[in-house]
Amino acid sequence: MEPTIAPIPLEKSYRLINHGPTVLISVRHGDEQNVMAASWVCALDFSPPKLTAVLDKSTMTRKLVEQSGYFVVQVPTAAQLQMTYEVGTRSMTADHDKLKKCGVELFDIGHHNQPFVKGCAGWLLCKVIPEPHNQTAYDLFIGEIVGAWADTRAFSNGHWNLESSGPEWRSIHYIAGGHFYITGEAKEANTDLKD
Amino acid sequence: MEPTIAPIPLEKSYRLINHGPTVLISVRHGDEQNVMAASWVCALDFSPPKLTAVLDKSTMTRKLVEQSGYFVVQVPTAAQLQMTYEVGTRSMTADHDKLKKCGVELFDIGHHNQPFVKGCAGWLLCKVIPEPHNQTAYDLFIGEIVGAWADTRAFSNGHWNLESSGPEWRSIHYIAGGHFYITGEAKEANTDLKD
Repeated sequence: MEPTIAPIPLEKSYRLINHGPTVLISVRHGDEQNVMAASWVCALDFSPPKLTAVLDKSTMTRKLVEQSGYFVVQVPTAAQLQMTYEVGTRSMTADHDKLKKCGVELFDIGHHNQPFVKGCAGWLLCKVIPEPHNQTAYDLFIGEIVGAWADTRAFSNGHWNLESSGPEWRSIHYIAGGHFYITGEAKEANTDLKD
Repeated sequence: MEPTIAPIPLEKSYRLINHGPTVLISVRHGDEQNVMAASWVCALDFSPPKLTAVLDKSTMTRKLVEQSGYFVVQVPTAAQLQMTYEVGTRSMTADHDKLKKCGVELFDIGHHNQPFVKGCAGWLLCKVIPEPHNQTAYDLFIGEIVGAWADTRAFSNGHWNLESSGPEWRSIHYIAGGHFYITGEAKEANTDLKD
């Protein structure tokens, strides 16, 4: 594992996705693995931490998630915007060289037999909580977050460092048609509320 | 209705929340109404459009949503950051003057008997699709989007205008502890993918 990557306490892991970034979902089962982009991933609970992910029936990622029972949600950076667009557009079913063409590099964390995408800001290893009705009726999967890590250049001590890290570390937020917004400036609310 | 507010075609309504902004959830039942902030709201389907929303059992908003069967998801702007923080922190159960103290102003759209928050960038009227297991086990509600509107200064012709509108129109993305990120600059992926 890269020396800049550190575990995150599970109870703070939701903070990696609380601001609604577009994420990458990766999964391995047997000899097959894939990575796709997803905007429709959302925190669901703090403790134990859970998230929801919408996985269309047409995707190979979904088939692999159903088979393996695990998946990884990772937060790509502004430097990975084009790769994120491409893994969301190219299909592994149509082209087995998808990951190479998109420029995806994978690495391992510990002995978890799942693929982690290099260069991201953070990673959430998720175990599927089977909910067959949601999966069939809504393409909606629920995952318990069982491991969380971040690149400390982007997120450390339970907080995003985007104010002090380079602009290439900012997360990205997809709309449609290749159009993204980059995470912008930080603003603090006044938390001292008067009665 | 304000002259700058226009309906959005339902099939493009997901674009109001696809970039993961923190939203406000409002609801009315009988003589009671409330507004709360929520980061855990996410698109679920394009057609018919649906979204998910996590509504904790302790909130008055949840009780009103269960009773009315409807709720409104709206996208607050950078100008509304402090109000968003306050409606997410102050409790209607503890203080019936919550909305006044937070500076929330409500308005009506058509004959929908639900409260819409003034000054937001967009509004999604949702009808609850009852899923008792999700609601009980996960606090997870599924809503079908049955009406969508935007302030054309922020979103028009199916697209966000944030590049040309003032910075006060940008959406906001909550992390924790009063800390938000504002939606930043736009970036386009190269959509002309070579084989």
